[in-house]
Amino acid sequence: MNFQFGLAAAPVTPLDKNGEVNVSIIGKYIDILLEQGIRSVYVNGCTGEGPSFNVQERKLVAEKWVEYGRNKLDKIIIQIGGTNMKDSQELAVHAQSIGASAIASLPHLFYQSDVSSLVEYCAELTSVVPEMPFMYYHIPGFTGVNIKVEEFLEAAQHKLPSLVGVKYSHNDLYDATQCTLVGGGKYFVSLGADDLFLSGLALGIKSATGSTYNYCGKVNCSILEAYNKQDMDQARKFQLEAHKYLKIFMKYGGNIAVTRAFLILLGLDVGPPRLPIMPLSNEELKSLKTDLQNAGFFDSK
Amino acid sequence: MNFQFGLAAAPVTPLDKNGEVNVSIIGKYIDILLEQGIRSVYVNGCTGEGPSFNVQERKLVAEKWVEYGRNKLDKIIIQIGGTNMKDSQELAVHAQSIGASAIASLPHLFYQSDVSSLVEYCAELTSVVPEMPFMYYHIPGFTGVNIKVEEFLEAAQHKLPSLVGVKYSHNDLYDATQCTLVGGGKYFVSLGADDLFLSGLALGIKSATGSTYNYCGKVNCSILEAYNKQDMDQARKFQLEAHKYLKIFMKYGGNIAVTRAFLILLGLDVGPPRLPIMPLSNEELKSLKTDLQNAGFFDSK
Amino acid sequence: MNFQFGLAAAPVTPLDKNGEVNVSIIGKYIDILLEQGIRSVYVNGCTGEGPSFNVQERKLVAEKWVEYGRNKLDKIIIQIGGTNMKDSQELAVHAQSIGASAIASLPHLFYQSDVSSLVEYCAELTSVVPEMPFMYYHIPGFTGVNIKVEEFLEAAQHKLPSLVGVKYSHNDLYDATQCTLVGGGKYFVSLGADDLFLSGLALGIKSATGSTYNYCGKVNCSILEAYNKQDMDQARKFQLEAHKYLKIFMKYGGNIAVTRAFLILLGLDVGPPRLPIMPLSNEELKSLKTDLQNAGFFDSK
Amino acid sequence: MNFQFGLAAAPVTPLDKNGEVNVSIIGKYIDILLEQGIRSVYVNGCTGEGPSFNVQERKLVAEKWVEYGRNKLDKIIIQIGGTNMKDSQELAVHAQSIGASAIASLPHLFYQSDVSSLVEYCAELTSVVPEMPFMYYHIPGFTGVNIKVEEFLEAAQHKLPSLVGVKYSHNDLYDATQCTLVGGGKYFVSLGADDLFLSGLALGIKSATGSTYNYCGKVNCSILEAYNKQDMDQARKFQLEAHKYLKIFMKYGGNIAVTRAFLILLGLDVGPPRLPIMPLSNEELKSLKTDLQNAGFFDSK
Repeated sequence: MNFQFGLAAAPVTPLDKNGEVNVSIIGKYIDILLEQGIRSVYVNGCTGEGPSFNVQERKLVAEKWVEYGRNKLDKIIIQIGGTNMKDSQELAVHAQSIGASAIASLPHLFYQSDVSSLVEYCAELTSVVPEMPFMYYHIPGFTGVNIKVEEFLEAAQHKLPSLVGVKYSHNDLYDATQCTLVGGGKYFVSLGADDLFLSGLALGIKSATGSTYNYCGKVNCSILEAYNKQDMDQARKFQLEAHKYLKIFMKYGGNIAVTRAFLILLGLDVGPPRLPIMPLSNEELKSLKTDLQNAGFFDSK
Repeated sequence: MNFQFGLAAAPVTPLDKNGEVNVSIIGKYIDILLEQGIRSVYVNGCTGEGPSFNVQERKLVAEKWVEYGRNKLDKIIIQIGGTNMKDSQELAVHAQSIGASAIASLPHLFYQSDVSSLVEYCAELTSVVPEMPFMYYHIPGFTGVNIKVEEFLEAAQHKLPSLVGVKYSHNDLYDATQCTLVGGGKYFVSLGADDLFLSGLALGIKSATGSTYNYCGKVNCSILEAYNKQDMDQARKFQLEAHKYLKIFMKYGGNIAVTRAFLILLGLDVGPPRLPIMPLSNEELKSLKTDLQNAGFFDSK
Repeated sequence: MNFQFGLAAAPVTPLDKNGEVNVSIIGKYIDILLEQGIRSVYVNGCTGEGPSFNVQERKLVAEKWVEYGRNKLDKIIIQIGGTNMKDSQELAVHAQSIGASAIASLPHLFYQSDVSSLVEYCAELTSVVPEMPFMYYHIPGFTGVNIKVEEFLEAAQHKLPSLVGVKYSHNDLYDATQCTLVGGGKYFVSLGADDLFLSGLALGIKSATGSTYNYCGKVNCSILEAYNKQDMDQARKFQLEAHKYLKIFMKYGGNIAVTRAFLILLGLDVGPPRLPIMPLSNEELKSLKTDLQNAGFFDSK
Repeated sequence: MNFQFGLAAAPVTPLDKNGEVNVSIIGKYIDILLEQGIRSVYVNGCTGEGPSFNVQERKLVAEKWVEYGRNKLDKIIIQIGGTNMKDSQELAVHAQSIGASAIASLPHLFYQSDVSSLVEYCAELTSVVPEMPFMYYHIPGFTGVNIKVEEFLEAAQHKLPSLVGVKYSHNDLYDATQCTLVGGGKYFVSLGADDLFLSGLALGIKSATGSTYNYCGKVNCSILEAYNKQDMDQARKFQLEAHKYLKIFMKYGGNIAVTRAFLILLGLDVGPPRLPIMPLSNEELKSLKTDLQNAGFFDSK
């Protein structure tokens, strides 16, 4: 397993007042991540609202993360999935051309896939960039593609040479664990169930990618550090601290609007989400700030 | 209610051997529909795999249906929905510019909508073509947007001036019926549950749009005719005949690959679907042909 | 098809102040049904909260419906399904011994069934009363048993000699229609999607059983009458009137507590439901009454 | 938290050739559990098919586990839930009278509960045995009651004085972890997601109850032992061994029929399940045996 990383944030895509992409703050965004110990990013994913941007916008965002992240970030992974093969292939070629670390893809966002059609789909998708490391993006709560990823990896072994791993955004830790064993352990698994990072570590899953690492990076790095010292009591203490913020995140809807609000409260003006996601109201934002203050969120930063 | 039509087919998008759009047979396609009594089309919808084509392809397909359909078809409705607002707006402007009868849109294909965010989404979407008749496309089995459309219409009444109706592809006939009553009956409902056309007629829903009207147009026109004569026994006889073909359709998977196979067997070489939809194998195609022959499908054409 | 009936009510089980079964008002209950033109009942079903009563209580309720209904009602069907075979068989034998018209059964209420295991289950269940007409009770919204009933009937044809039909409480009217065709039309289908009675009639389903026939019997009898005269406009008018009350029913939660409230407002003191179903509050009851008055509900009685 | 235990098996209910309860082998059953290091049992739960037995049978089974388990087992918990309050209360009183350690209950098995109605339901249920420790049984995959148990515990704190904890048979480890924090940590959580025992330990959940502890007790005790020594590599090694058997369990359907088959292969003739659960065929049983042999299952016993 050559392709791997520790903790990665799935950044939101900054927007300006007019709802247009605002790449000018990506440099500052990266600094905020680095301060928390987060050194990899997963761009244009679900949190990044990749599907809500057109090809031109997605290219621009990818370019700027690569440009600003050079010599600062470890891995920059570009999510290229959508609803049509041509756009996705164009994004794949572009990601390679700008020097991204890897591409990742959701399954087709509209028509359902099973293991067999998913392998075919990914094979055609990646055929235009055969040398580019490819991660499958498993997030059945959004896509409805409720496959066992272990079965996908088994089926993909000899058909997807560029496949390096999976971003596993689901709480089926049994399946996620089995994924780490396929083909003698050649596939990399990055967990996207942020609430279960320590659970994943205990089962041998050594990486996590998610939205909460945008603003809870520090405490999650502490989980990893404690775990590596086999200090489970300490690790659990940090996981419970992360849960405390997650509970607040859920209270306000648990979606991208709330992730954006957290970042705004940290001083990064990322703007509102795009429709159909609705932004938090000013009242909600104010109340969220109070809740976070009471929970000591800003102290730990 | 000024915008209305009877039966409309949701055509598949013809592809050539290389999987590229093949608009050259759309003229012939229209003739096949007209022979069955079908005089309206719903282009680039779910059956048309609209989401699987990029903007340029979708424009081409829309243009050709309008071009070949001029003076032959009654209504030509272009489905513009996808996952990003900019592409959808571009398709809306294009549909208006080529002289389509109306636009229709799915909700955002990835992020979930509720009634409130859906109204906002549609308002922004249609703001670029305020004069263009707009239909909401309700197909929760594909989108997961399980709203009551009646509530959507109530909420949209004063916010979506171009809204004329809904394509209702779901079997909640109670909700569909209630939709016909909102605002004093100003919204047009076209049923997309092809198996229930007669049920819809009985409840006052006078239109249907769907994939089976590509190849079962004649018998469905007969249902309508018998119903209009209040000959319910005859109407039911025709509905049961349509069910006979629907049962065969379901036997082979009940998806777009099968719709394409029906058309191929009727002599229209529309090609295979795009991934992740898998085409029928040659064996399945052969077996389908036999089943249809035994059912008398080709006799009734 | 020897076993058949028109409209049947699924009565609630009357309770007294202490939450105990109150069979003393069943005679009056029957009179209220007869006044509306309803002459058959489906006892101890979902609306009757059959599963929430123990064997002794279920027997008592069944006995009293048969006793009070003698020479007044047409068909008295006793639902015997539950979670254990022994209790259900005991109830089956009892239903036969008291002279009920038929038994009906839900699938096992806890462990999931497929077509194959359901046939086995029903075969063992009915083996103790081989002469007693048996109806399968299909209500997947409650049971999660999402089979195609057509497939069940096909599989059951030679294994369930006492099977006479199905209470079809689901809106898959295509499947319901196909059920009427199995085995040359030997199975009786009674629709339990009360909002779609006219739709069912149009498709050849001539019976309906449900909770709304407790209090909307008259208007549904009018639907049937108009339909039989092939007066579809009139039939639809009555169906829309029934929808008007159904909308109010849904507004208050659309469950058994509301059915009980309707009956209480009609002067039959049936008491509250059993836990976990929560009764309407006094405020809700009052508000319901006002809504029904405004809708003209009491005028039509 | 006074009520607690480590690993508990959810035993199947032994049946004889005629499908009748066979309590004569419960003594031997207990020996098999003890040999594996399992010292607590959860009787008449989902694995025990509690709902498929009538009151008399459930009492008999409970009695015999208590009788044979005296001085041998630590905790004997009797699951009393079903579809009617009277039977469940009768079982609760009985469990107390025979000296069981605690009662546990599923929510009502047919009518859906929310947090509020569930608290009311449990309050009435436990009112007949106010001194008897009570566990809520959360298994939404079977019951459809998809509540957050943390919310239930919060709501139940002042209304269910006998509530001591929850059997948590679901993979939402975040919620399970939050449950351990409610009320200052006064509730006991026993995890029922057998594949995630080590994950639970990492998050502070110190107990597990499930079907696989019938036959994989030893390796799970080894997980616990290694975890307590903070030897995570060793703990994970044992968890992966447990996964190996779980994969075989899933291959054959992953249901109670397979649990029974495992026990039969271990020499305990527990018989087939009750309908609608279908037993493994002889071919399947043979194949299962071979798979287990190849996996070294019998070596580790």
